[in-house]
Amino acid sequence: MTDFKFDIFSTDGAARRGRVTTAHGTFETPAFMATATAATVKAMLPDNVRATGAELAICNTYHLMLRPTAERVARLGGLHKFMDWPGPIVTDSGGFQVMSLAKLRTINENGVTFRSHIDGTAYELTPERSMQIQQLLDSDITMAFDECTQNGASPEEAAASMRMSMRWAERCKRAFMPREGYALFGINQGSVYPDLREESAKALNDLDTEGYGIGGLAIGEGQEAMFSTIEVTIPFLKPMKPRYLMGVGRPDDIVGSVLRGVDMFDCVMPTRSGRTGQAFTHRGTVNIRNARHIEDPRPLDERCGCLACTRYSRAYLHHLFRTEEMLGPILLTTHNIQYYQGLMRGLREAIEVRKINDFAAAFHEELARGDIEPLS
Amino acid sequence: MTDFKFDIFSTDGAARRGRVTTAHGTFETPAFMATATAATVKAMLPDNVRATGAELAICNTYHLMLRPTAERVARLGGLHKFMDWPGPIVTDSGGFQVMSLAKLRTINENGVTFRSHIDGTAYELTPERSMQIQQLLDSDITMAFDECTQNGASPEEAAASMRMSMRWAERCKRAFMPREGYALFGINQGSVYPDLREESAKALNDLDTEGYGIGGLAIGEGQEAMFSTIEVTIPFLKPMKPRYLMGVGRPDDIVGSVLRGVDMFDCVMPTRSGRTGQAFTHRGTVNIRNARHIEDPRPLDERCGCLACTRYSRAYLHHLFRTEEMLGPILLTTHNIQYYQGLMRGLREAIEVRKINDFAAAFHEELARGDIEPLS
Repeated sequence: MTDFKFDIFSTDGAARRGRVTTAHGTFETPAFMATATAATVKAMLPDNVRATGAELAICNTYHLMLRPTAERVARLGGLHKFMDWPGPIVTDSGGFQVMSLAKLRTINENGVTFRSHIDGTAYELTPERSMQIQQLLDSDITMAFDECTQNGASPEEAAASMRMSMRWAERCKRAFMPREGYALFGINQGSVYPDLREESAKALNDLDTEGYGIGGLAIGEGQEAMFSTIEVTIPFLKPMKPRYLMGVGRPDDIVGSVLRGVDMFDCVMPTRSGRTGQAFTHRGTVNIRNARHIEDPRPLDERCGCLACTRYSRAYLHHLFRTEEMLGPILLTTHNIQYYQGLMRGLREAIEVRKINDFAAAFHEELARGDIEPLS
Repeated sequence: MTDFKFDIFSTDGAARRGRVTTAHGTFETPAFMATATAATVKAMLPDNVRATGAELAICNTYHLMLRPTAERVARLGGLHKFMDWPGPIVTDSGGFQVMSLAKLRTINENGVTFRSHIDGTAYELTPERSMQIQQLLDSDITMAFDECTQNGASPEEAAASMRMSMRWAERCKRAFMPREGYALFGINQGSVYPDLREESAKALNDLDTEGYGIGGLAIGEGQEAMFSTIEVTIPFLKPMKPRYLMGVGRPDDIVGSVLRGVDMFDCVMPTRSGRTGQAFTHRGTVNIRNARHIEDPRPLDERCGCLACTRYSRAYLHHLFRTEEMLGPILLTTHNIQYYQGLMRGLREAIEVRKINDFAAAFHEELARGDIEPLS
């Protein structure tokens, strides 16, 4: 077993190129996680996820505590074995999903009580129970149980919410069982208010968790507010710890956030979009359901090396979505994950050679060109 | 290019071990096709289909003439390129699906007029048009356009239906454009009436098509009637041509039919069952949705080498179906296709060593044991 550690190899401005070592192997940063909410990356075989370059998966405490339950996953040998993902796994704490999915939620200082959105069963989730669940799941990176402060909260509301999250973070730290190669990440909150973000960062620094989540962003505040919040927050985070911007985001959100010093990302966008026919390409998003593709023999993205782009025409992908064939979501999800992983690889290489600004400029220039012209 | 040919290497009783050579490569017989109705094996990547040992795919004239249309597939380079299946492809003639799916069907001596089940558009399908469509799709084995005589037809109805199919087969033969490595299979009809099956076989022999479909079976007549119909039909088919029992079937149907001299099979059962949670194993079928599997750490079938059985527990597969995750259908379809291909491999090897009866006895004995006992 090895210690959990974060090595930074090079930097370019605020951007960092590093590697995180966990009990189940390493991942290169900046990293984009494979979203495996219910212990599966939707529509994907794990081997095909790994083939895109994804090294880190994220599973969901809320979903897994309902089905199949954390205790059952533990008896079956933990998440890595259960879902055939031998590499590193992050679990979120469940707080966000409880507030967005569960029914009859009641939140107080102790934690949250709620009823399952599936069958109405009553549950309680507290910082201590969230730590226990994440340990039972055997995730390498445990996220602290927090409250995601709603977008538009007043400074008073945001302060009260953030301070409760910081008290919960303390309870998480006490409840978290240190194990070699395993980490707890505290989560920075404070909405878009710089003083609250600073206060939250200092509280987390006192706890000395192995890394930081940056939470409560990408929930409607807009990209500009998100970037400026990152900028005012990061100076207060200890530089030698990884920074994980939770739930972000679009490709341009990621490029901008890496420029500002973020190391880790997760977002449902590549997988969810893949299932509905939206593809990410170097020249922006493509809706493959659009009739313009019906007889287009060209690949989705000629620069992409994924299965969808090397083996199939846009016409075929269009056909699969039009006929509601499962291979459509399979191929577009594969493509989108590959696109995101390629973007991360490009960002990492650019930081290594200290060309991150050139990379970002080229990225935006190509994006602005828009999709290839339809065939006449 | 090579001629279309069928080589028989060895026989054991009525069972034959052979190889069919087509314009797009060979396949070993007895063969079970991969069902790729709308130019995709549902829930599967072609590479994973091939990895199971499947060499031959079957696509559907009716579905493809509606979407994306045969003309469009032709302009895109044909089915092999369109769906990334470089190997041999069979297309059915569309007759069966018109009768089971289309609306406002009218059948007469000329052919069938109908409306699409998708958008109500009017179409006509005749022997000549079916041949044209299958040529546009570029299938290696074109099936004659016939009427599938309904189960329970009287001898008079069955005779009239079969004789029209034989007149249509003549028109198919005239319309089929011979190309090196491509074949037309006439389809034997006649319901369960031996004299009609004989009359049909002789009509097809006069046409001298490259192989035979055996149609109008596995539509409710029962296994005993199916087997006895095969037994009375096959003696009238020319021995050096491949025999394809259309739409069959369950594993025991296949074993029994190979024993009686059938060379080729197709059926939606492994793929359709895989999507609904039913798995085929050496010890019979398993409904993975059943609660008995919820914490079972054992593989679906310990004798199976597929992804589902080597990487995952029954508990995980159960979880995937319970949470309606796409990976469930993906893994169970993979398993079922692998099971069927393993069965065919076993049958081929048994014929080679003239142990087909021992193989069949062992197959039935293991099947009769039923699924492994639940864990206490």
